[in-house]
Amino acid sequence: MTTPVMPEPPYYAVIFVSHRTEGDAGYGAMADRMAELAAQQPGYLGVDSSRGADGVGITVSYWRSLEDIAAWRRDVEHTAARDQGRAQWYSAYELRIARVERAYSWQRD
Amino acid sequence: MTTPVMPEPPYYAVIFVSHRTEGDAGYGAMADRMAELAAQQPGYLGVDSSRGADGVGITVSYWRSLEDIAAWRRDVEHTAARDQGRAQWYSAYELRIARVERAYSWQRD
Repeated sequence: MTTPVMPEPPYYAVIFVSHRTEGDAGYGAMADRMAELAAQQPGYLGVDSSRGADGVGITVSYWRSLEDIAAWRRDVEHTAARDQGRAQWYSAYELRIARVERAYSWQRD
Repeated sequence: MTTPVMPEPPYYAVIFVSHRTEGDAGYGAMADRMAELAAQQPGYLGVDSSRGADGVGITVSYWRSLEDIAAWRRDVEHTAARDQGRAQWYSAYELRIARVERAYSWQRD
């Protein structure tokens, strides 16, 4: 689950839905590295990620502002990973940038 | 992947991140029924969903307006499923309502 230090809305979410090609081909190591690198960026608030057995994955990262998202998009290593993703790891993806207006959480006692 | 008939932004996303308890206990049938029922609601645009082997699932549903989301929230069957979710199927969840500002998609040739 997302780190529990999220601020109150509004903040921003990057919703990345991807369909993997078969085989790893360095994907796992890249995904771990991108998670590590994203967490070091200014304005990073947290991430939720899951991938099912059907190869469909959803990663939602949370950011303080659109400017923070734009800066992470320009990161050199991130840019190289995106290029490699299109060349090799993904068969399709969708990316959405959204402004989080409300947030609720629930946890079993 | 999301149905390809999505309109241009702005529209709304409901980001639901959940952690499952162990065992099915009717969860799969409920999830299928909720997907079927949501798709019949006014303003429903599509859904992306994945759940990994670690029990963390992310479902992002897309809606035309906040009013459409509020109406689906009030649906009687949906309300009963939420109650059952807290009683039985989930150990924790987070729900966020976000306004999609931009959307991109990419598909391998």
